[in-house]
Amino acid sequence: MRVPAGRLHGLYVIVDPETADPLPLAAAVIRGGARVLQLRDKRNPAGASLRLAEAIGEVARRSGVLFIVNDRVDIALAAGADGVHLGQHDLPVAAARAIAGDRLIIGCSTNTVEEARRAVADGADYLGVGAMFPTRSKSDTRPAGIARLREIRAAVDLPIVAIGGITAANAAEVVAAGADMIAVISAIASASDPEMAARTLAAVVEATR
Amino acid sequence: MRVPAGRLHGLYVIVDPETADPLPLAAAVIRGGARVLQLRDKRNPAGASLRLAEAIGEVARRSGVLFIVNDRVDIALAAGADGVHLGQHDLPVAAARAIAGDRLIIGCSTNTVEEARRAVADGADYLGVGAMFPTRSKSDTRPAGIARLREIRAAVDLPIVAIGGITAANAAEVVAAGADMIAVISAIASASDPEMAARTLAAVVEATR
Repeated sequence: MRVPAGRLHGLYVIVDPETADPLPLAAAVIRGGARVLQLRDKRNPAGASLRLAEAIGEVARRSGVLFIVNDRVDIALAAGADGVHLGQHDLPVAAARAIAGDRLIIGCSTNTVEEARRAVADGADYLGVGAMFPTRSKSDTRPAGIARLREIRAAVDLPIVAIGGITAANAAEVVAAGADMIAVISAIASASDPEMAARTLAAVVEATR
Repeated sequence: MRVPAGRLHGLYVIVDPETADPLPLAAAVIRGGARVLQLRDKRNPAGASLRLAEAIGEVARRSGVLFIVNDRVDIALAAGADGVHLGQHDLPVAAARAIAGDRLIIGCSTNTVEEARRAVADGADYLGVGAMFPTRSKSDTRPAGIARLREIRAAVDLPIVAIGGITAANAAEVVAAGADMIAVISAIASASDPEMAARTLAAVVEATR
């Protein structure tokens, strides 16, 4: 898929059924200004995960928000999602591209300049870079702070979503270092008012760009 | 994929890294006469699962044995497998067919005549029927014994693989009731000599047909 011009920027919210009920959360953060939604679902079997993806995708589409499925190329395709996001332990970007052709935006989590360059060469459409700061959302994250983000920004041209421990207090610093998008899970899922939390973060990103 | 004529019959062995080292086991059961291999891998992340699927697929292809990947249509496609096997909680058969077109044989686990008829209507190439007998390999199995196998056999024309608690002692009864293939995990993975266990089971199936 040719990435829709200008749509890979702003607040990128990951919804995960382990953390919060995904559908109401998706609706709230869209109202709050999220531009991209990712469903990360390691809990449900594929059939239930597909139904959840279809429901979230419908909400996203109605609002002009991009919808990305984590890890599973098959579920992303079956749900008619805009894209798939792949970690370093998921299917390789090139394999996903061979399956999906231009039907999906493909994002790839990277941690080093080398991984970022490989993802570009393999055909990724955007890069994840993190973890920017310590986080409790994922136990397997490797650190990649502001300095690493700047290195990767200087090395590649693709849109970058920074992830890991980003809050309203540090989001401006992350955007100033070169991130096009900031991704959050905990900062919004754990907020007493997720819509307001999204609105605050989205405003920081927009103000800094 | 048009199912290769006459290849969906005989001994169908499921290899699972939770149960035994898959690659040596695959080689042993192929020597023992298995005609179909399925990789069921709920343990590894997708990248490692793809590498395992590629390795087993290579062994199977060299021997003219069909290779099926459980659950993940994307890994089956990326590995160049012959097919994918879907449970009732996995992606729906119709969704898998929409993604894979004719590139994959699609198998579907069924437990009732109704599920079997739906799988046929949705485009499955073969049906799994079970659990025939009590088994410890899967905790979520519903029973579907010899009588149910006969009902499904009478209702649909697709090749059937019977699964669940099948051993050399009861395999003939299962084939006589209409199964084209018998699937085993524990009966082979737990055997002191998996090749001999496969040879014995394969002989029972071939003798009964």
